[in-house]
Amino acid sequence: MNIKITGTGSYIPDVIEKNEDFYQHKFLNTDGSVINAPNEVIIEKFKAITGIDERRYVDNTLNCSDIAFLAAQKAIDDAKINQEDLDYIIVAHNYGDIKHNVEQSDTVPSIATRVKHLLGIKNPSCVGYDMLFGCPGWIEGTIQANAFIKAGIAKKCLIIGAETLSRVVDKHDRDSMIYSDGAGAIILEATDYDGGILTHESATHAVDEAHYIYFGKTNNQDSSEQRKYIKMYGRKIYEFALNNVPAAMKSCLDKSGIDITDVKKILIHQANEKMDEAIVQRFYKLYGMKMPERIMPMTINKLGNSSVATVPTLYDMILKGQLKDHSINKGDIILFASVGAGMNINAIVYKQ
Amino acid sequence: MNIKITGTGSYIPDVIEKNEDFYQHKFLNTDGSVINAPNEVIIEKFKAITGIDERRYVDNTLNCSDIAFLAAQKAIDDAKINQEDLDYIIVAHNYGDIKHNVEQSDTVPSIATRVKHLLGIKNPSCVGYDMLFGCPGWIEGTIQANAFIKAGIAKKCLIIGAETLSRVVDKHDRDSMIYSDGAGAIILEATDYDGGILTHESATHAVDEAHYIYFGKTNNQDSSEQRKYIKMYGRKIYEFALNNVPAAMKSCLDKSGIDITDVKKILIHQANEKMDEAIVQRFYKLYGMKMPERIMPMTINKLGNSSVATVPTLYDMILKGQLKDHSINKGDIILFASVGAGMNINAIVYKQ
Repeated sequence: MNIKITGTGSYIPDVIEKNEDFYQHKFLNTDGSVINAPNEVIIEKFKAITGIDERRYVDNTLNCSDIAFLAAQKAIDDAKINQEDLDYIIVAHNYGDIKHNVEQSDTVPSIATRVKHLLGIKNPSCVGYDMLFGCPGWIEGTIQANAFIKAGIAKKCLIIGAETLSRVVDKHDRDSMIYSDGAGAIILEATDYDGGILTHESATHAVDEAHYIYFGKTNNQDSSEQRKYIKMYGRKIYEFALNNVPAAMKSCLDKSGIDITDVKKILIHQANEKMDEAIVQRFYKLYGMKMPERIMPMTINKLGNSSVATVPTLYDMILKGQLKDHSINKGDIILFASVGAGMNINAIVYKQ
Repeated sequence: MNIKITGTGSYIPDVIEKNEDFYQHKFLNTDGSVINAPNEVIIEKFKAITGIDERRYVDNTLNCSDIAFLAAQKAIDDAKINQEDLDYIIVAHNYGDIKHNVEQSDTVPSIATRVKHLLGIKNPSCVGYDMLFGCPGWIEGTIQANAFIKAGIAKKCLIIGAETLSRVVDKHDRDSMIYSDGAGAIILEATDYDGGILTHESATHAVDEAHYIYFGKTNNQDSSEQRKYIKMYGRKIYEFALNNVPAAMKSCLDKSGIDITDVKKILIHQANEKMDEAIVQRFYKLYGMKMPERIMPMTINKLGNSSVATVPTLYDMILKGQLKDHSINKGDIILFASVGAGMNINAIVYKQ
């Protein structure tokens, strides 16, 4: 028995928020002081580091569970399965449903229940739960589904990564330009086909790193609002990622017995273009190699960082031929990898 | 290999909120109309149905992750394991950390990361994640840990159920008197001892039932606040539970091959005394039997409904000899069962 991805789907939100849409924002430092540069320069620098030109936001009527459902529906259709045969619906997210102009997150019932409800799945044995694991949540959900299949308690699982970060951004924070909305989904099945998940690796670094990504107040010290927003210590995360992610990826690959030269694509969480490149360069350096051309497909330029959604969305787009110069073919070895709040790291070596 | 609970711990909050502490509340119907009875009568009726005399609230300085940590620490000590050997920290909750007098929930980093941080566990291979599954979350987390051990990716897991429902109650809603705070934890391990988890069963009913427990506005229609609170359709839940939980428990027990007369204790989610009794009575009726005396230990009278925390807390208290007239001995068959938001149902047949 092999455990394979038999269908994929994603939802790319309609609203395009370009870098120039931030020209009128009043960006402040965390101490409330004004950043000593015109916005054009701030944004130029931002673009040079992150690679982001534009990002996607859901329209005001949609929530995390809605886009999770839309991606799920496509993955189910793509896998050509009867949705009543699903054993699990696993939804990775971090903030739940936060309606437009609403402060509170809504997580009861779970997003998985909402997705199941929207799909109209009647079978009570299809168990839906949410899991929170920072940006690496979708990869971790896939690792969990893999374990359920191996343990004999599931055969077909739907794993979704969905997030609406536009609902938790502080407009006075430069980092707000990183975040985006999106949803990606897969069907993971026990099959007799060749390939599938070969190895996986997960880690939680929570001694010094627990609060590198956190929920904090606006940078605008004149504001009396108590509302909290997604916040991060970018430099610390960069250093942490460089020090830990390449080694985790190597550990995962070495366990699989696959040679580094046989890796066809690395699908890495779209966190920040410069950081992602540095991670993959260092990963190859661990094998005494230079990073090959076109090994690392990227979507961050147009789609931003949509947390749990970046990896499944990227994978879906490549399979559907929507990403220029990139393809994945039967038998190809792919390395999925992610890093994010927790701080959590994970990776999967997958044979297409 | 058997998969057994080798340590338990719980945290019972200090603040005792008695029924008479609600005498001055202004209880309203969901349409905002005044309930046509004095509070003493409302509360008397409430007590007759739910069995609740008093409930526990955390003090203002504590959050969900703090009490999760306190329960976890006790379970680790009880199991006499080195906490660095843990492969997973699974925290079941539904609302995250909601500080006193704060509206927003904080779930980034995950509660599991916060617990790992507070425990001071350094080993990065100890993976922490949160799972949202309504009140049955702790049982479901235990089922997941069981699968990870069976799949060969874990040997020792910490599973916590922690919730501070006092932070999401509408004081104008009679149902607010049901909810309580608490945390319970176990260590689940692969062992060579006899017994352990024999069978389990899970279900998600999300067609008509998805929103039986939901997040809604205060019953006070004069209020302009947007804040949402835990809300439920009590009668619908009662009917749903009676129609579905006994059958799920029976399915779980029958799979185990254990005879109904060999069940020593049923540890059921402390949702509502009358409902719990009706569920267990109907469960026995499915076997043509009357419910035996002292089969169903209860804590709801003094501890209220603390969601994911009720079952592990109840189990811990019995093992520690803190529940009058109840004990669990080596070899005893126990049935864990729960029902809650989702609507989710689950059960585990366990041999002590």
